[in-house]
Amino acid sequence: MRILIVNPNTTATMTATIADSAVRVASTDTTISAVTSSMGPVSIEGYYDEVFAVPGLLMEIAKGEKAGAQAAIIACFDDTGLDAARALANIPVVGICEAALATTSFIAQRFTIVTTMERSRQPLEHLVHRYGMSGRCNVRAADIPVLSLEHPSSHARDKLRLEIRAALTEDRAEAIVLGCAGMADLTAELRNEFDVPVIDGVACAVKQAEALITLGLTTAKSGAYASPVSKRYTGLLEMFEPQHMGGN
Amino acid sequence: MRILIVNPNTTATMTATIADSAVRVASTDTTISAVTSSMGPVSIEGYYDEVFAVPGLLMEIAKGEKAGAQAAIIACFDDTGLDAARALANIPVVGICEAALATTSFIAQRFTIVTTMERSRQPLEHLVHRYGMSGRCNVRAADIPVLSLEHPSSHARDKLRLEIRAALTEDRAEAIVLGCAGMADLTAELRNEFDVPVIDGVACAVKQAEALITLGLTTAKSGAYASPVSKRYTGLLEMFEPQHMGGN
Amino acid sequence: MRILIVNPNTTATMTATIADSAVRVASTDTTISAVTSSMGPVSIEGYYDEVFAVPGLLMEIAKGEKAGAQAAIIACFDDTGLDAARALANIPVVGICEAALATTSFIAQRFTIVTTMERSRQPLEHLVHRYGMSGRCNVRAADIPVLSLEHPSSHARDKLRLEIRAALTEDRAEAIVLGCAGMADLTAELRNEFDVPVIDGVACAVKQAEALITLGLTTAKSGAYASPVSKRYTGLLEMFEPQHMGGN
Amino acid sequence: MRILIVNPNTTATMTATIADSAVRVASTDTTISAVTSSMGPVSIEGYYDEVFAVPGLLMEIAKGEKAGAQAAIIACFDDTGLDAARALANIPVVGICEAALATTSFIAQRFTIVTTMERSRQPLEHLVHRYGMSGRCNVRAADIPVLSLEHPSSHARDKLRLEIRAALTEDRAEAIVLGCAGMADLTAELRNEFDVPVIDGVACAVKQAEALITLGLTTAKSGAYASPVSKRYTGLLEMFEPQHMGGN
Amino acid sequence: MRILIVNPNTTATMTATIADSAVRVASTDTTISAVTSSMGPVSIEGYYDEVFAVPGLLMEIAKGEKAGAQAAIIACFDDTGLDAARALANIPVVGICEAALATTSFIAQRFTIVTTMERSRQPLEHLVHRYGMSGRCNVRAADIPVLSLEHPSSHARDKLRLEIRAALTEDRAEAIVLGCAGMADLTAELRNEFDVPVIDGVACAVKQAEALITLGLTTAKSGAYASPVSKRYTGLLEMFEPQHMGGN
Amino acid sequence: MRILIVNPNTTATMTATIADSAVRVASTDTTISAVTSSMGPVSIEGYYDEVFAVPGLLMEIAKGEKAGAQAAIIACFDDTGLDAARALANIPVVGICEAALATTSFIAQRFTIVTTMERSRQPLEHLVHRYGMSGRCNVRAADIPVLSLEHPSSHARDKLRLEIRAALTEDRAEAIVLGCAGMADLTAELRNEFDVPVIDGVACAVKQAEALITLGLTTAKSGAYASPVSKRYTGLLEMFEPQHMGGN
Repeated sequence: MRILIVNPNTTATMTATIADSAVRVASTDTTISAVTSSMGPVSIEGYYDEVFAVPGLLMEIAKGEKAGAQAAIIACFDDTGLDAARALANIPVVGICEAALATTSFIAQRFTIVTTMERSRQPLEHLVHRYGMSGRCNVRAADIPVLSLEHPSSHARDKLRLEIRAALTEDRAEAIVLGCAGMADLTAELRNEFDVPVIDGVACAVKQAEALITLGLTTAKSGAYASPVSKRYTGLLEMFEPQHMGGN
Repeated sequence: MRILIVNPNTTATMTATIADSAVRVASTDTTISAVTSSMGPVSIEGYYDEVFAVPGLLMEIAKGEKAGAQAAIIACFDDTGLDAARALANIPVVGICEAALATTSFIAQRFTIVTTMERSRQPLEHLVHRYGMSGRCNVRAADIPVLSLEHPSSHARDKLRLEIRAALTEDRAEAIVLGCAGMADLTAELRNEFDVPVIDGVACAVKQAEALITLGLTTAKSGAYASPVSKRYTGLLEMFEPQHMGGN
Repeated sequence: MRILIVNPNTTATMTATIADSAVRVASTDTTISAVTSSMGPVSIEGYYDEVFAVPGLLMEIAKGEKAGAQAAIIACFDDTGLDAARALANIPVVGICEAALATTSFIAQRFTIVTTMERSRQPLEHLVHRYGMSGRCNVRAADIPVLSLEHPSSHARDKLRLEIRAALTEDRAEAIVLGCAGMADLTAELRNEFDVPVIDGVACAVKQAEALITLGLTTAKSGAYASPVSKRYTGLLEMFEPQHMGGN
Repeated sequence: MRILIVNPNTTATMTATIADSAVRVASTDTTISAVTSSMGPVSIEGYYDEVFAVPGLLMEIAKGEKAGAQAAIIACFDDTGLDAARALANIPVVGICEAALATTSFIAQRFTIVTTMERSRQPLEHLVHRYGMSGRCNVRAADIPVLSLEHPSSHARDKLRLEIRAALTEDRAEAIVLGCAGMADLTAELRNEFDVPVIDGVACAVKQAEALITLGLTTAKSGAYASPVSKRYTGLLEMFEPQHMGGN
Repeated sequence: MRILIVNPNTTATMTATIADSAVRVASTDTTISAVTSSMGPVSIEGYYDEVFAVPGLLMEIAKGEKAGAQAAIIACFDDTGLDAARALANIPVVGICEAALATTSFIAQRFTIVTTMERSRQPLEHLVHRYGMSGRCNVRAADIPVLSLEHPSSHARDKLRLEIRAALTEDRAEAIVLGCAGMADLTAELRNEFDVPVIDGVACAVKQAEALITLGLTTAKSGAYASPVSKRYTGLLEMFEPQHMGGN
Repeated sequence: MRILIVNPNTTATMTATIADSAVRVASTDTTISAVTSSMGPVSIEGYYDEVFAVPGLLMEIAKGEKAGAQAAIIACFDDTGLDAARALANIPVVGICEAALATTSFIAQRFTIVTTMERSRQPLEHLVHRYGMSGRCNVRAADIPVLSLEHPSSHARDKLRLEIRAALTEDRAEAIVLGCAGMADLTAELRNEFDVPVIDGVACAVKQAEALITLGLTTAKSGAYASPVSKRYTGLLEMFEPQHMGGN
């Protein structure tokens, strides 16, 4: 199975962390291809950054599909660009937030997402609601920049721990979902420390992508995920016209 | 009052229709500036097109704010890029879908949005849900391309009429919301024809924007609409780095 | 534009506060007519008072409509009698709670209403739910009588401030909605003090009423707001028979 | 047990129908006192009529409580004035809609209310929502005036039957709730005819009122049902000042 | 009226407590028959125990119905086996949780269930949601074993009191629902102590069962409560084949 | 990986169908052990049958866990006994309904479950609601007995096809979920015939179980899934006492 993982944050060290997490759980017959988007913000922190991360992300998904990928993963916890990617691609596309929530729902009734920036809390609350989990899933923000996670010596990880502790006591969370792809390397350590299930969305998404490939399932194209209609795009983004990108 | 209207569809004739509708309802002390985005799809039909409409839209909003606009309107019924625009701008930003729904809620308990393409139905259903109207507002699609509305001789308007009739009889709709900025010029005609309130989001958004200016209200910046953080954007979209666009 | 504001609290000093707030934001071509209801409680505090405020309110709306008003505003934050007023009147009718919530929804994702009496909290929670805002709007009560707001020297305003502070810290409110028409004169002062958007429903309702007039929209009459049926009313309230009041 | 039933429709023949239904199910140790309100509309059809039915209703409840009633029933399916009555009275107050829905919930998972006028449908849908039954209870209107039910020879009953049949086939209703106090005398006949449970709210309310009396339960007074505050009421309705009616 | 109460906890002293509570509120023409299930757990604490309580419960209901019972009550606050019992029996079946919530809804807008074990909290939250009360009813657990309630000298009752106090102050509960059949004997004492309505589900269920009998209502059989289909059951539970138990 | 699949329907031919579906999608390093429960109904059709299917199911899960299974699957679309199984087992447990819904959510926005008996529709609607999918997933019943699916010559499969066709046209379903483990062998055929994604819960559950094993995740034990407390079980079911079954 050939799975493409796109990091829409244009920071290669973060992609390395993501790839490590993915490879660790992939099946022996799975090839993981983790790529860093070549255009957009070095880290996605809120609604504005999301906008500029999506074109590069879609470019990589289109390239990956042409190169033979059988499923694609979007490695940002906001599930950035997921709907557009599903419309564009013929292969299934999985977001790490939706994968984490679906997986956690099999092992816990109540759980909490701990994310980075305060400004990401509401976008995640909207996702939780859309994915049907609002009755059982809280969102907390540790108030740390995304890239601060790259530095083990920073205080960011301490703030993350404080918020996990609050989730366990105040939210009665039975499991913790790590709300940023850049936290993937902390999973094992935090499981040991807190002795509860700690869920990394990247790893979950790999297993969900493998599942879809094996089950022979791909995005239904009869509704909002119909392939984009050929048309003229003006200006800077002309190269993204559907007819150039593999749409109808 | 100086209000900027951005048409994120890069079709100037459509912008003219929008501007007409806006000017007709603007206060005498309001200056409407309607601009066509200079980059992106000629019409927005579904999730994929939305992505590529947003950078050009944000560019116009940033320019407009610098030039003295006191409020901005996004003239696409998907409320394309609304969250990012609110994070970027210091002036209030209004979407035509949210403006239409809020306005209609004062005059009818149950109403129906009639939009163009089938693939736009689900994005609008998500908006209806997010705006708290799902118990009272249906969405219907007339299955017509957006730009077909530009041609009075086309069959598109007949299909639109059929769907309005279905909404009145099958949904018990008390009012009809026109689900595309390109329908703005049909409002008066359809009101006469069906003898029910017919609502055009462009006109509603002008009045909501004027209201916010007069009330001295602008986007709260303490949550998800905090100004974007300065950071590096790589590649094609580098010019949109927050620090170049008026962010922090 | 001629807008009628009815204060269903029969306290003329409160009507003066309301009129001040309305006039301050009205368009130059708008005439505000603010009247005090001539029958009912001096202040509306809870479900029982509401009942006896409505007949006088409806009387003023019927009179105002006959006198040429083009829209009516109900200046009590419980949106007292709003449904009945919409059924009776042919002009649009706006409640200050619904106007405040709709307006605030354009500038904040999460906000809190701060009202007066504890017993008004649940009626407002029901309105918030009905208006589709329960996921994003809390209600708090400062536990102060409505008319205590009339006396600047009283402790009421201090208690109000305490509750606003709690909303900002505990509810993560990004904006504060003043939950009583009698608080309208505090808006500017509280904005300065707390440096967040503070919303007065009276001012919002004026702008919404102007919007409806300009947009040529009035209450849809095909559902629950159909004009009342002529019939006999017995006893004390006979004068309110629909056929006397302008119904069918 | 002494139970007061107030018919807020000022039509004595309708009260007789209600009393019949009540007496048929009352316990042997229960005394039913059914009174017709002395002021207000002869029939309640929509929001406007509701307003003018409530003062007379509250008057009868206050009188009944003083005369020794241990519980009160409001015999109009809109649960007209229920919240105000609970605030005023120290005895428990039961609405026939809420009683019907609570009772039906013990015997069916999915059911339909069949009411009279189209304009009553939305008020009932709001009640269904408030009582937590919107996932399992539809509302249908037979499009008949309330008082037409008084005439066995009219076509009203045929239209009612048509709507019941539609509920059973189209809504998959397992039980039918009669959505008007004036339908109480049809219960047995319709049960036989359709061979499904047919529920009359008047009878249900009698049993719920007896239950509350026996269980020693009365309205909690710590929230929105706190007794009304003494204050001045001006004009026509002065006699309803809380201090005259038994409030604090 | 002949009402069967089945205690699915196989602890006879607990059944005695339940019977006491039932007899105290039963009508003079009602005969209460309270039986202890002969198979299953001595106390039901969580999902696992529930499973093994149901066969014995259903056996007693089938026996009771054959012996002439006109309604059955399941005396465990999880409403254990309620759906299966409704499918099996032709007489109406009432759960004590649903009876308590329905009854409380007539006297309070906001209330809290205080139950025993932490592990019972989520099952009860699911019931509260299913019964349409999630907006107004919290669930708290006193963290005490069910059978500890049998010993007046234990600390269990103190922990229960602490949790009630927290419900009144932190949840703004206007009434307290006792979340375990084994608490029935504490009702009067706790009402006096806290001076708020305290509701015992057993007593409520008796009144609801009497109501259904008098109203001539029994479970609708056209949906999920259709009588079980005759078929082979293998192994230990063969005796429960529908054809042996009174099914079709 | 060693995965146990328990068919709680005691029909061995159905287990063979289930095992076929499971083996077809299992990873090469997965061993599937599919067992038929040794006690209970030959087919589960509604609430009553469910009760008697669970003890046998739990027995097999406990045996399987002792024998080294790393995850268990409950192969009945009602997710029969899932909560109790999660409390009992230390290995993760997956229901085929929840697995099917989670998997389908990655490829379609709107989908329909087509099940067998009308009486199973409401239990499935409750599951859909609990799993957070009620806004996007309908349930239809083909009105066929479960075991009729075993006979390729029967009319059952024709009725199933009719209902699928109705789902695609009337519900705008983009994908079809087969609502019975006994339909697993029809998946490929129906995909070809209708050219939309057709989802079999058994296959989905295998992939979800493999995912949980690889991810090192098992049921959180801090809430309602805490291990059952040791205690006495009386009568026929004594052998299921938690202390005998591996509970605490």
